[in-house]
Amino acid sequence: MAVEPEQGADAKVASPRSDQVRDRIRARLSQAAGIGSDPRGGVTRLAYTEEERAAHRVFAEWVAEDGQDCTTDAAGNSIATYREGTPYFLAGSHLDTVVQGGAYDGAAGVISALEAARAVADDTDHGVRVVAFAGEEGARFGRPNLGSALAAGLLEPEALSRLSDADDITLGDAADALGFPAPAADTWLGPEIICFIELHIEQGRQLETGAARIGLVDAIAGSVRLRFEFRGRSDHSGATPMPMRSDALTAASELVLYAERVGRQYRSTVATVGKVQVQPNNVTTVPGVVRLWLDIRDVDADHQRLAARSIFERARDIGEERGITIVGEVISDQPPVVLEAWPRVIAHQECAARGLPHRVLSSGAGHDAAIVARRAPATMLFVPCVEGISHSPAELASVEDIAAATEIIAATIRRADRLAVPARHR
Amino acid sequence: MAVEPEQGADAKVASPRSDQVRDRIRARLSQAAGIGSDPRGGVTRLAYTEEERAAHRVFAEWVAEDGQDCTTDAAGNSIATYREGTPYFLAGSHLDTVVQGGAYDGAAGVISALEAARAVADDTDHGVRVVAFAGEEGARFGRPNLGSALAAGLLEPEALSRLSDADDITLGDAADALGFPAPAADTWLGPEIICFIELHIEQGRQLETGAARIGLVDAIAGSVRLRFEFRGRSDHSGATPMPMRSDALTAASELVLYAERVGRQYRSTVATVGKVQVQPNNVTTVPGVVRLWLDIRDVDADHQRLAARSIFERARDIGEERGITIVGEVISDQPPVVLEAWPRVIAHQECAARGLPHRVLSSGAGHDAAIVARRAPATMLFVPCVEGISHSPAELASVEDIAAATEIIAATIRRADRLAVPARHR
Repeated sequence: MAVEPEQGADAKVASPRSDQVRDRIRARLSQAAGIGSDPRGGVTRLAYTEEERAAHRVFAEWVAEDGQDCTTDAAGNSIATYREGTPYFLAGSHLDTVVQGGAYDGAAGVISALEAARAVADDTDHGVRVVAFAGEEGARFGRPNLGSALAAGLLEPEALSRLSDADDITLGDAADALGFPAPAADTWLGPEIICFIELHIEQGRQLETGAARIGLVDAIAGSVRLRFEFRGRSDHSGATPMPMRSDALTAASELVLYAERVGRQYRSTVATVGKVQVQPNNVTTVPGVVRLWLDIRDVDADHQRLAARSIFERARDIGEERGITIVGEVISDQPPVVLEAWPRVIAHQECAARGLPHRVLSSGAGHDAAIVARRAPATMLFVPCVEGISHSPAELASVEDIAAATEIIAATIRRADRLAVPARHR
Repeated sequence: MAVEPEQGADAKVASPRSDQVRDRIRARLSQAAGIGSDPRGGVTRLAYTEEERAAHRVFAEWVAEDGQDCTTDAAGNSIATYREGTPYFLAGSHLDTVVQGGAYDGAAGVISALEAARAVADDTDHGVRVVAFAGEEGARFGRPNLGSALAAGLLEPEALSRLSDADDITLGDAADALGFPAPAADTWLGPEIICFIELHIEQGRQLETGAARIGLVDAIAGSVRLRFEFRGRSDHSGATPMPMRSDALTAASELVLYAERVGRQYRSTVATVGKVQVQPNNVTTVPGVVRLWLDIRDVDADHQRLAARSIFERARDIGEERGITIVGEVISDQPPVVLEAWPRVIAHQECAARGLPHRVLSSGAGHDAAIVARRAPATMLFVPCVEGISHSPAELASVEDIAAATEIIAATIRRADRLAVPARHR
């Protein structure tokens, strides 16, 4: 073609896997990565900041390019309507990032959702909307999924004044400063949604290892975070015989290894000590105080609860055996979420029909889909990211995979539109 | 007495446990603690700094108060001659401190030595000298016992340009700036010394636990320092199943516990992991890199060597079992030193004669006496420090104990002076 077709009507009928669509996905990913570009590398677009807002404004521009309308809810989530009507299909993800994050986490799902919506909008009997959730990453306020939880009515009101960032700015004040004085006022996520569909990078290596290009997510793990403080006694490493020691680090090491054993006990469980503080952390001093942060995740709520309990019990025993004080606390506790089966079954059939290598897997990472799933059917599609690297400037996914998954999302919406999905969702 | 006796002749005959001597010890400890007093608490008088020099100038003033002469050697060690003659008795310790150190570590031994020398100077047939060694603490240049090693000819010449502080100032340049352009030029520690006697705070709790007021040191432990780097793989704590992980922290925890087991294997061995670095040290990331610093001490050279070797072997096995790279290196290796028996036997008898609760113990901490012992007989007396706390503004010892130990030092010199000590030392 000598002349590029106009954006709009022509482009809408293109297959989501066409060159044109792939080029637009690539260009938009690149455009998003330029917003909040961090001089140290990567992208820093934290929750409820001007950088995140800038990304939402660009989202509105993309929607306008498609000739559609975009609104913003009370919590700062952007919602684009590609076809009016209820019940409706909702697709999307988020536009914020961690500090020095990558170009794909969140943005890929939002950009894919726009292409899927554009592809099906004239083809469906129901409504089609795209959402860009605000504040998905917990990086700024220590809690993830803020925008989706607010829209679902799942953020307890006092969290607005309780959650604060490193500069002691509360979530409520941060939202207010951006023009959202009552972010909890608008709880629109509900039964009018036929299904929420979120594409996301895997952030692990199961797809890559299995040479699958698409992951169909059956469940999103819950997460229990624990913190333990081991209170031993700082002593001179030379002048203190072993029997006279209260070594906080050897006690803590026992719990690190026990947590690993617990994680290995059930296939669905993972348990990680990711963060450690040692005091005084001096070569010639027996460590007096050690703090450990523990993350337990499981798609099975019973296993998750049992794992946390058994780690607490082991900590108590270690304290008794070693005669030191160990204080543990639950920092957060999110239950696992099993995702709706029917959208995954349709997506599976659509992958199989196209010969796309795919597999069913659970998500160990949390996502907005886990929040939406408490109000409406939700499903997730993963695309591989190179070596599982995420939350890093090195994050990399294939535009070809994103386009393929986008085609599956569009096909799933078309099939669901024609099929009898459970009546309660209509 | 209505009139205080003049310092000098009269004071010399006072018993080291007289009120007058105790008051002077207390006053001088207090005076020393004021030199390099740290606004954050404690005393900071690092090796080869102006603060350390100021303490040596005060030392010269104390010597002058006793009517004696003081010289400084090429390495900045101060030597006071209380009685001319060779062979001679040498007593002393050091005047530098760690960052925010206490008032007793080093200073107590120097101040006690002055009192002991003053008490015996007119009473002996041999020479009597007091030394204040420079740069005993490793806090600034990462290596302890600089002044004594220089005077013993035991510091390899290239160390002057190789050892440097946090500001990249070399030991040689630091010494030069203080007026010691050739610190290795003067190796005077040798067979003319009948015995070197050092009083020091214990820096442990063995005396306190056993209600002993004086410790007679039979050996000074050696120290092997090892560093291990565990190179695993940073992964998302939720998205990475346990079997796909290369967790550097769980591997490191195995070595921490193994080192503890090794330390417990022989009564004389201690093994400590005092310092740990975890990367990236994030709650939701499997640790990719962990570095451990290990300190192994023993008064038995064979045990010390075997302990280090077995820890290296275990590290190799952990690496193979877990499929991760573990790189270990020896940072430093100091052999243990067995101290001369006869001065300890005399001191033991003098303690027993006075009904002073005492015990024989080994020093886990390093001291200048371990350096001098390679050139001449050396012995050490420990006094308890409260709760074993040292290298801290909270360091506290009893002036009564220091005075009692000073009397034992004086009595030991008097007895040794009269006894036939081994001919090679005459």
